[in-house]
Amino acid sequence: MLKIAIDVMGADNGVTPIVQGVIQALKSRDFNAVIIGDEAQIAPLVPPYLQSRAQIVHCTDYIRMEESASAAAKRTQSSIFKTTELLKNGDVDALVSPGHSGATMSLATLKIGRIKGVSRPAICTTMPNTTDKPSIILDAGANTDCKPEYLVDFAIMGYEYAKNVIGFENPRVGLLSNGEEDNKGNELTKATFKLLKEFSFFKGNVEGRDIFNGSVDVIVCDGFSGNLVLKASEGVASAMSSVLKKDIKSCLCSMFGALFLRGVFKRLKKKMDHSEYGGAPLLGVQKVVIISHGSANARAIECAIYQALNAIESNICSKLSDAFANKPSSAQQ
Amino acid sequence: MLKIAIDVMGADNGVTPIVQGVIQALKSRDFNAVIIGDEAQIAPLVPPYLQSRAQIVHCTDYIRMEESASAAAKRTQSSIFKTTELLKNGDVDALVSPGHSGATMSLATLKIGRIKGVSRPAICTTMPNTTDKPSIILDAGANTDCKPEYLVDFAIMGYEYAKNVIGFENPRVGLLSNGEEDNKGNELTKATFKLLKEFSFFKGNVEGRDIFNGSVDVIVCDGFSGNLVLKASEGVASAMSSVLKKDIKSCLCSMFGALFLRGVFKRLKKKMDHSEYGGAPLLGVQKVVIISHGSANARAIECAIYQALNAIESNICSKLSDAFANKPSSAQQ
Repeated sequence: MLKIAIDVMGADNGVTPIVQGVIQALKSRDFNAVIIGDEAQIAPLVPPYLQSRAQIVHCTDYIRMEESASAAAKRTQSSIFKTTELLKNGDVDALVSPGHSGATMSLATLKIGRIKGVSRPAICTTMPNTTDKPSIILDAGANTDCKPEYLVDFAIMGYEYAKNVIGFENPRVGLLSNGEEDNKGNELTKATFKLLKEFSFFKGNVEGRDIFNGSVDVIVCDGFSGNLVLKASEGVASAMSSVLKKDIKSCLCSMFGALFLRGVFKRLKKKMDHSEYGGAPLLGVQKVVIISHGSANARAIECAIYQALNAIESNICSKLSDAFANKPSSAQQ
Repeated sequence: MLKIAIDVMGADNGVTPIVQGVIQALKSRDFNAVIIGDEAQIAPLVPPYLQSRAQIVHCTDYIRMEESASAAAKRTQSSIFKTTELLKNGDVDALVSPGHSGATMSLATLKIGRIKGVSRPAICTTMPNTTDKPSIILDAGANTDCKPEYLVDFAIMGYEYAKNVIGFENPRVGLLSNGEEDNKGNELTKATFKLLKEFSFFKGNVEGRDIFNGSVDVIVCDGFSGNLVLKASEGVASAMSSVLKKDIKSCLCSMFGALFLRGVFKRLKKKMDHSEYGGAPLLGVQKVVIISHGSANARAIECAIYQALNAIESNICSKLSDAFANKPSSAQQ
């Protein structure tokens, strides 16, 4: 049976919601969990009938959010170090971590290693749009300063992930730019555009709004831009909700009307809820690594575990390995 | 009386909505308009009693959206060339253009000239947030590849605009980055951060979501990033509206409820409506230049004219000139 390691230390709201997410996942899917963290806090949360499927690896040290990612490599007793070791040694098949994402990325890259041919691993995130399938965006934050060849690798990884894990038949890949025309872009994207033209999946430049209208399936950008657009998008959605809520509450008549729209608002909220999308895989390392929000709730962790299981079952790492073995040499700078 | 030149050619929906916007503005504010464009189309739209306040400068050539901005300098018979000439010669006090924005920017910079000390003019846009005052973002797209000293200049210009035109008492300026911590950022923003620390208005790094929560008043970024976050934000808002509308229409019960929320939805729409914010000033040139959306409706043009009047009345260009004359030399690279 597949084994998933979950680092339950270092999340914003403590151990409890993370372990609860693991329990929920254990109840609905067949896998074994290895929970890394403070046994005294974890053990009481695991119901007796699930204990045989939830091994605890005791550990209390963890990388604090304010610490630098580079500290992680020396902290051999920290939860993320131990979790990465388990994955490296083949004791588990994937890891999920809502802790310090920089530490997770750097340890995973260092210890698990990159897939041959991948210049830089990237965080691949999914966002809801107006269609039934999500948009896939990478890099969502692993690499703040990029070279054109990194973005080409992100495009290949995003394409393979969309096809093999999300189930798009022929994923269309776009390059995030400041206009749709071929000549738009900054120095980085203009140089990337020339390299991406070699790939039949490449549909050209797309704009920020295309993340939400489904005009392409995969959107490629540097990790700095990816972070900006994703956080701005969250900001708009939350500002709109808060303005709407406040205004509805200011008048009895609209509060009455809102009663009839409870279902509508609930569905919109669910569609936009990050928890439903779990975490974000770190693509380009040799094994499955899922990075969750530090503020992940139980549902988000549960979904992140499903994401890990889907990624393993779809053999994404070997698919990526094949894709990079066959990468056209003309697309390398 | 103040004179505003409006280039009515080259907008997405033709001459009519632009001229209608001018007429609406003439009805409610004291100024004279100089309308540059095809007289045969413009004249019938101007009511007789306003003809003395609306001079028409006939001209049919204009820069098409698909043409390159660099074409503009040679097209001496084009509407934007003529409009810029009027401003340059002091025949008008400001210009408003919903036409080719690249052409407007390059002609304005070339013919009107930069304010002494300004490295690059920037497009300064306003976005609604959860507070009563808008957020000010620059550069919204004039400069795709920036150096740290450009961003410092954008910060100074944004601060002065927020203070003198929008009316913030002590505008707080943030640098758009991938995290709030001082050490976050890409190469460009990290170098910019060091320079901005000299300024008391600088409040540090902000994230994409801070555009919409009012945690700072002015947000500084390169024009490529600015374009990405603004278009992504528009995309989210429009996706949310369309999902909501579709879902409401799918059930009689929620359609009934929505009737009671008409006022709420209307106010939200108005708050988020770009038209209400007019256009975006090109800050850093020696006179007032307002760039409007190509798809601007009459209301947006009307508001863009008010924006031009406010900018002139607040003496923004001489305020900027003073600010750059007194710019600390330590903030220059």
